[in-house]
Amino acid sequence: MKKKRILSGMRPTGKLHLGHLVGALGNWAVLQDDYECFFMVADWHALMSEYVNPSKMKEYVIDNVVDWISCGVSVDKSAIFVQSDVGAHLDLFAILSCLVPLGWLQRCPTYKEQLRELKQKEITTYGFLGYPVLQAADILIYQAECVPIGEDQLPHLELTREIARRFNSLYKTKVLRDPQPLLTSFPRFLGLDGRKMSKSYDNCIYLSDSKDLVKKKTMSMITDPKRIKLTDNGHPDKCNVCSYYKVFAPELKEEVAKKCSHAEIGCTDCKRKIGDILIERLSPIQEKRNKLLSDKQQILDIINKGNKKANQLTSAILADVKKAMGL
Amino acid sequence: MKKKRILSGMRPTGKLHLGHLVGALGNWAVLQDDYECFFMVADWHALMSEYVNPSKMKEYVIDNVVDWISCGVSVDKSAIFVQSDVGAHLDLFAILSCLVPLGWLQRCPTYKEQLRELKQKEITTYGFLGYPVLQAADILIYQAECVPIGEDQLPHLELTREIARRFNSLYKTKVLRDPQPLLTSFPRFLGLDGRKMSKSYDNCIYLSDSKDLVKKKTMSMITDPKRIKLTDNGHPDKCNVCSYYKVFAPELKEEVAKKCSHAEIGCTDCKRKIGDILIERLSPIQEKRNKLLSDKQQILDIINKGNKKANQLTSAILADVKKAMGL
Repeated sequence: MKKKRILSGMRPTGKLHLGHLVGALGNWAVLQDDYECFFMVADWHALMSEYVNPSKMKEYVIDNVVDWISCGVSVDKSAIFVQSDVGAHLDLFAILSCLVPLGWLQRCPTYKEQLRELKQKEITTYGFLGYPVLQAADILIYQAECVPIGEDQLPHLELTREIARRFNSLYKTKVLRDPQPLLTSFPRFLGLDGRKMSKSYDNCIYLSDSKDLVKKKTMSMITDPKRIKLTDNGHPDKCNVCSYYKVFAPELKEEVAKKCSHAEIGCTDCKRKIGDILIERLSPIQEKRNKLLSDKQQILDIINKGNKKANQLTSAILADVKKAMGL
Repeated sequence: MKKKRILSGMRPTGKLHLGHLVGALGNWAVLQDDYECFFMVADWHALMSEYVNPSKMKEYVIDNVVDWISCGVSVDKSAIFVQSDVGAHLDLFAILSCLVPLGWLQRCPTYKEQLRELKQKEITTYGFLGYPVLQAADILIYQAECVPIGEDQLPHLELTREIARRFNSLYKTKVLRDPQPLLTSFPRFLGLDGRKMSKSYDNCIYLSDSKDLVKKKTMSMITDPKRIKLTDNGHPDKCNVCSYYKVFAPELKEEVAKKCSHAEIGCTDCKRKIGDILIERLSPIQEKRNKLLSDKQQILDIINKGNKKANQLTSAILADVKKAMGL
């Protein structure tokens, strides 16, 4: 049976961290066995928020692709490509722009939220308003049947489906396929300071962090604030470090939680131990990273191969789209 | 001395008429001697207003290019190209979109005017709002020094210049050139019914109209409404037919005006005569038209040649633009 097609992507706005490993990347590595996967470096999307200082993007494109592969994305199974190298994305974007009412975008529930969240950036721009239209084009130009997303992204996918329906009904066609969400829930864990792990909070453990840095960072983690003395009983269910055990060493989770709540293990020991576990988890990833980074041409070749596959597929679909419109 | 570069274009939304001949096309034929000209079939712009039924666009693209050449645009001197075949237009459009504040577009004086004028069309879309950004990209991606426009288009060009300045100041570069307006005032004449000559008013004489049709159409023209009987004195300065003499037979203008105001010539004769003059004017154009249309491959070759020249120039400029941004 033909595999269903998936489109997913990441914005090259920084180095990747543990959140990416446990979230999207872990998911991608699994999905590629059952789906035909296209994984996109979404540089146009990145530019929309990073346009004031985009000079580091070039570096992040390479660095992210290296991390993808190091975390298990297979160059043989999946296509890894760069959005701006595949022209049909902007072509379909321009086509869909013509038929998307402004109101759909202004009313998009995530739009105002993002304006608030990123308020230190000047993003009340024309481009940023069109973000969901470009996202729709990204998905529809692959006739992707499935899109792996979290619950919070459902409104965006619904907009994609609405845009596809408008196009199909306007031109009496079925060329744009209704993509289905592949809802995935990821184990939750927070940044070093107990807030969401995010570059802008400076609270990340990066996949490329050295052993010493991982050690130092884990030792700085905030633990149960109610446990003041070593002899106080801890509350592992309220401790961020404990959630790290849940995610990265589930086999130790029960034991550590029990010891913590009976004051049989101190926070320092607990953090030292999870630090070692993280170092061990990151070690093969970093080994692969370093090997890949030592041969930059190889990375470029991988991207070129993915671009080629993406260009072949999308130009055929774009031709069908234009034909359906009578262009 | 190196010739200055010009970018100008036309939307392929219908067959061309006398207004185009006397306006843009006549101007283009003159400008190409002194400037390096790029003449664009603006099909993305056309799609923005015609997206509901774009199926005739393909035909208009060919038909318009045929008219351009028949009216004197030289294939050797100028590049004739199709906007959607030159990818860098959308690339620069996407880049500029990121840095154009929404307010600049919402406040654009011509935007609300067009929303009113085209209110039978659903153009409160995302694409239509971005019209001036695409127009800016069209001009700037050629580093065009000059743009031939009418006074009414000055606000659009001012917006292009503002966008270029914003880009250049953001990235501390001069890669986007400040285009200057080449203001041109055209002799005014109206459609058959005394309103502006426009496809949507069904009051045009098309460059491709047969002799019989031109005859029939000119005979249907509205003349001086105050001249009821043949013996009444006419008011040539208020007669639309008289303005046709001014444009198409200036050497007869004085004589006709005098005869009219002394009731020495009737409106029927006056219209028959201008009809003959128009037929004579259109005759060589139509001859060239028919010859070109008999060899469609030749037209496609001309467009391909223009596309190639446009692609060469714009991809070099796009590379400079990206370099200036650090991409």
